[in-house]
Amino acid sequence: MNTFGDILRLTTFGESHGVAIGGVLDGFPAGIDVDVEFIQSELNRRRPGQSALTTARAEDDRVEILSGVFEGKSTGTPIAFEVRNENQRSGDYSELKDIFRPSHADYTYMKKYGIRDYAGGGRASARTTIAQVAGGAFAKLLLRRIGVRVYAYTSQVGDIALHLPYQSLDLEAIESNAVRCPDAQTAERMAQEILRVKAEGDTVGGIISCVIKGCPVGLGEPQFGKLHAKLAGAMLSINAVKGFDYGCGFDGVTKRGSELNDIFECKPDGSIGTRTNHSGGVQGGISNGEDIYFRVAFKPVPTLLKDQESVDTEGRAVTYKARGRHDACVLPRAVPIVDAMAALVVADAYLMSKASGAFTVECLP
Amino acid sequence: MNTFGDILRLTTFGESHGVAIGGVLDGFPAGIDVDVEFIQSELNRRRPGQSALTTARAEDDRVEILSGVFEGKSTGTPIAFEVRNENQRSGDYSELKDIFRPSHADYTYMKKYGIRDYAGGGRASARTTIAQVAGGAFAKLLLRRIGVRVYAYTSQVGDIALHLPYQSLDLEAIESNAVRCPDAQTAERMAQEILRVKAEGDTVGGIISCVIKGCPVGLGEPQFGKLHAKLAGAMLSINAVKGFDYGCGFDGVTKRGSELNDIFECKPDGSIGTRTNHSGGVQGGISNGEDIYFRVAFKPVPTLLKDQESVDTEGRAVTYKARGRHDACVLPRAVPIVDAMAALVVADAYLMSKASGAFTVECLP
Amino acid sequence: MNTFGDILRLTTFGESHGVAIGGVLDGFPAGIDVDVEFIQSELNRRRPGQSALTTARAEDDRVEILSGVFEGKSTGTPIAFEVRNENQRSGDYSELKDIFRPSHADYTYMKKYGIRDYAGGGRASARTTIAQVAGGAFAKLLLRRIGVRVYAYTSQVGDIALHLPYQSLDLEAIESNAVRCPDAQTAERMAQEILRVKAEGDTVGGIISCVIKGCPVGLGEPQFGKLHAKLAGAMLSINAVKGFDYGCGFDGVTKRGSELNDIFECKPDGSIGTRTNHSGGVQGGISNGEDIYFRVAFKPVPTLLKDQESVDTEGRAVTYKARGRHDACVLPRAVPIVDAMAALVVADAYLMSKASGAFTVECLP
Amino acid sequence: MNTFGDILRLTTFGESHGVAIGGVLDGFPAGIDVDVEFIQSELNRRRPGQSALTTARAEDDRVEILSGVFEGKSTGTPIAFEVRNENQRSGDYSELKDIFRPSHADYTYMKKYGIRDYAGGGRASARTTIAQVAGGAFAKLLLRRIGVRVYAYTSQVGDIALHLPYQSLDLEAIESNAVRCPDAQTAERMAQEILRVKAEGDTVGGIISCVIKGCPVGLGEPQFGKLHAKLAGAMLSINAVKGFDYGCGFDGVTKRGSELNDIFECKPDGSIGTRTNHSGGVQGGISNGEDIYFRVAFKPVPTLLKDQESVDTEGRAVTYKARGRHDACVLPRAVPIVDAMAALVVADAYLMSKASGAFTVECLP
Repeated sequence: MNTFGDILRLTTFGESHGVAIGGVLDGFPAGIDVDVEFIQSELNRRRPGQSALTTARAEDDRVEILSGVFEGKSTGTPIAFEVRNENQRSGDYSELKDIFRPSHADYTYMKKYGIRDYAGGGRASARTTIAQVAGGAFAKLLLRRIGVRVYAYTSQVGDIALHLPYQSLDLEAIESNAVRCPDAQTAERMAQEILRVKAEGDTVGGIISCVIKGCPVGLGEPQFGKLHAKLAGAMLSINAVKGFDYGCGFDGVTKRGSELNDIFECKPDGSIGTRTNHSGGVQGGISNGEDIYFRVAFKPVPTLLKDQESVDTEGRAVTYKARGRHDACVLPRAVPIVDAMAALVVADAYLMSKASGAFTVECLP
Repeated sequence: MNTFGDILRLTTFGESHGVAIGGVLDGFPAGIDVDVEFIQSELNRRRPGQSALTTARAEDDRVEILSGVFEGKSTGTPIAFEVRNENQRSGDYSELKDIFRPSHADYTYMKKYGIRDYAGGGRASARTTIAQVAGGAFAKLLLRRIGVRVYAYTSQVGDIALHLPYQSLDLEAIESNAVRCPDAQTAERMAQEILRVKAEGDTVGGIISCVIKGCPVGLGEPQFGKLHAKLAGAMLSINAVKGFDYGCGFDGVTKRGSELNDIFECKPDGSIGTRTNHSGGVQGGISNGEDIYFRVAFKPVPTLLKDQESVDTEGRAVTYKARGRHDACVLPRAVPIVDAMAALVVADAYLMSKASGAFTVECLP
Repeated sequence: MNTFGDILRLTTFGESHGVAIGGVLDGFPAGIDVDVEFIQSELNRRRPGQSALTTARAEDDRVEILSGVFEGKSTGTPIAFEVRNENQRSGDYSELKDIFRPSHADYTYMKKYGIRDYAGGGRASARTTIAQVAGGAFAKLLLRRIGVRVYAYTSQVGDIALHLPYQSLDLEAIESNAVRCPDAQTAERMAQEILRVKAEGDTVGGIISCVIKGCPVGLGEPQFGKLHAKLAGAMLSINAVKGFDYGCGFDGVTKRGSELNDIFECKPDGSIGTRTNHSGGVQGGISNGEDIYFRVAFKPVPTLLKDQESVDTEGRAVTYKARGRHDACVLPRAVPIVDAMAALVVADAYLMSKASGAFTVECLP
Repeated sequence: MNTFGDILRLTTFGESHGVAIGGVLDGFPAGIDVDVEFIQSELNRRRPGQSALTTARAEDDRVEILSGVFEGKSTGTPIAFEVRNENQRSGDYSELKDIFRPSHADYTYMKKYGIRDYAGGGRASARTTIAQVAGGAFAKLLLRRIGVRVYAYTSQVGDIALHLPYQSLDLEAIESNAVRCPDAQTAERMAQEILRVKAEGDTVGGIISCVIKGCPVGLGEPQFGKLHAKLAGAMLSINAVKGFDYGCGFDGVTKRGSELNDIFECKPDGSIGTRTNHSGGVQGGISNGEDIYFRVAFKPVPTLLKDQESVDTEGRAVTYKARGRHDACVLPRAVPIVDAMAALVVADAYLMSKASGAFTVECLP
């Protein structure tokens, strides 16, 4: 299933070593200015070779838009886009043809499909997230129009955690360092950790936090389209993700209800808000106008530059050692993917809400 | 959006104080023996009034099947079922008409729909999970046919955590105590904690763990129908859930890749398995035949028997105190809901896999 | 697949001789006054035993609403409804257990599902259209709010055709006779034909025409959600339907483009309309504000009160003669089903259009 | 809505004068040999400039596959393909910017989206059916594996109708003339008619018939996924289509049930078949193993080389005359589109049937 969304639907395609990676975004409303440079800039955030922290593969990744945009505006017709694969060295992978790499998707793809594109990760490669990031960039253009902003950032790498709540962070500073952590001191410690692990030929995981500001009230479709459930499904679809929580999250399980309830109050402008926000901006699966914040847990990726045992397709024991160019920690490059998926979820929920509130509520913007 | 699933589709309906709660299960294969007593027993697990630990409301909750079953077998046509609401005291809720209860869905439902059924929780009430539990019971009947078993259990209440890995637990003992924790000592400590919190008029959260055994290889549909992502979306749709993780989960973020990779090996029967299982039975979004295990974090529910501040629909400050009969901790009653959603996800993925592997792989059972 | 619609989704259930027939309508907007008597009156139109022309079976068919309505208004939550089966004589059908009746669904259901409910038509029975008619009644309540009206009527029975264009008919007179043909003289001839055929123990087909007035501009979602394509799929889902055309339809194939093009002109109120309407109110798959009109072809139903040859489940030749009470011509009772499906299509398209036209066009009502 | 299908999902994109036209085919099973020359040959059937009968526009239309195929076989991952637009003369259309051409989609697209790509037909152009034809070619590759063959052909142009039943036609001869009518004499008369109309600067319509042979029993998902209803929705999505019927179709409305019922009988090989086939191979919405046959009515296309009145975007009267290169009759070029949509419907239904018949019926191939 390669389509994400109900009204705003992104269908992705492409393998790491195929001709191209891209997508078709259907249901994007007409009349939105399509800022192609912005879309390219979002893809550039995802690209490897940006710093000493990430893999040295240089991938140009220029996006080309094939349809759905006319004289700089979306037409309401499907927007297709692609990035041609140019710097994928097939030679790095030829010995993988018959080996199931540990904790990769090689085995499961072979069992499910009976055939697998063994070059790089094929469809399972994180390179395919080019499509999600481009689709999410379009979603961000829509969200700009309604004043919603998405801020994903690295909040933990290995044991090094940013212990500040998001309210005290300068979220506009996320892009100021290679780790994408908005606290410079913590970012530096994280960077050192990544280099240390890289030198060991190993990998390390972490947590990406995300805040969505300015979300209108009323987004989310209970019972099975609850906004936070859509975010969870979106985040768990990203490579290497092992967990998701929002609002008080896993930390809330040891608390009392009396500690966590968010008291309603009337705000200066006459609207209703909450004094605290343990809910995370969503109640009963519907946005309540407060900040939406969540965390995404990433495991250390499985491609190590160390010998590992495995088996081949005949079940015989083999030794496998990755070659080529790989990331010791994917968190910095995953930040734009979390951004993108969050933007797609909220934009889709926004469009859906226009259909569901048709007769009684004052119009959403 | 009240339909869950792609092939096996459960559509739910009903409010806590409406005429009935129920659902329609479409896409259920023909020829399965429908054990109505089993379905009723699953619903009985969810019912309140089972012990001193849960609310004293007595709800009989007899399920009636309206279609889709003939001479005791499923026909392949939609199966509708309902439970009539009989013991819902409307009088307990009349003062709620104009109050937004803290951390409930009252405010968001009113803003989204412009109208809300203020009796109990209306559509947002956990009582509506009758439909999920019944639908999940049907899914379990299908899973029995292919040797898959689902075991959800309470693994944490407040600070009291079960520190044993699931492999050392007797999963058949889950139903042996009211808490639904398979370790008797921990269950007793959990029960005492719940009674303590109840006496305070407060509420407490916890974690439900779940193990799925016997899942065939090949279930899950990358990129957006990954099996673990479907589980995440399913669990986050349950009332009071704030988080989900699977396999090494959030604990894995501090580990190295070399610690977490699951080495493939040839098992005695000639099939391929993994020596360890940090992956949690899913790789690349597709089941690999190993146990699937995950955790679901529940916040303390917001209905407290203590005074709380709030506002009414005009924005004026009010004091609100819940009356009626409520749970201090929903974990024991939520265990069958986690079971049910897991069963629905796996059964749906199983049916979908029959469509996707059509031409190359050896048949799944 | 028992769900119809994309935003306004009707899921149906029930067999002719099961416990109940009904549905769940999800995505119905909040705040609509639910006129239960109107819904019952639409179901009454579908009921048998209304005249000498239709089967003598008396079916009370009282609808009960189970959810989604509060203090007389829709809440935006799913609306479940059911009609209990009370007057279904199982004894009429017992010899059918092992026979495949000609041109019925007996054989195909047995082959597809391996099991069939042989009482009456089971799930394939036209009695199940109770669900579509009730769902369509809700859709009509929504359409009233935006000034859209649906008029289905019998325009042909056997060789007897109404040769007047709909513009010259009194569409408010459809209910004035049992045939549901708005021209009294033609209706009388049709009635005589039906009685003649009934006396022969045979059946006859016909055509139902339908006009949708007041449809706003902009409904329909190219390329695969074109409004007329949705109507076609909806009509072909009705029992006994063999064809659909709209606008100039099959008659247009012998015409020239110069004869059929609808010239645009500026109407007195300043809006744009067309001088003629061969298009049938839809251009490029999107409504243009003109009347939408289409025809639905019904074959004579297969249940005859005459001997027929057939085979049993073992392939052995048998003679089969229907007993019980049946219609010689289903057209009069099918008119409300055509109405209902048209209403569901247009209401769904209306809600979808609110999502797709979000940023540039003037708001639809 | 630009995605067609439930399991085998084709998402299309592209405008007549945009960068490219193409699609993404998701859910295509793994292990199918992808015969790229066959796919190109199907696209070549659709191309203009093939004969004096069609428009003189020369379009090379080379398809490029971007993903989902590895070493010549499908991988089960999404297959993206595109055709770059190269010979689209924008200059032919510049005066159309402010004119609503009669019976085109100009007006409705402008009203719905607030913006339209006025070059050629934009998204509404029949050139976009490149995507359907390519997707359908993949579907045909799957159908070859299970012995299903699709034969669409021109059976009527204007008043000139092929009066032979399909059983007496050589369906392998469809490609032997430019009209794609398998009876040489009728084909010649049709060709003359087209040239005559072309010389007048006018257009003419017709009917395409289609036969699907070898369809297995059990395809189709009642109530709303009935096989014939899916075919209807698919055909009505094609440009210029005004009607659909199958089996006895509109002709059956004047017949008696006793004339049309298809008597079951045991065939020489022991299987059950029908002596006649007025049903058209589908009963109760499910295929019964007999030939499926249907007709698609095409109106004359609206682009005339004659003066026509119209209005501009301000509502002012204008005269409009098409220039450029156009078809007098689209039937010959629409035959491969009907083929393609039929193949997509059947292939999708086949894959869906593997999920729905899981436990009781003998395996479909």
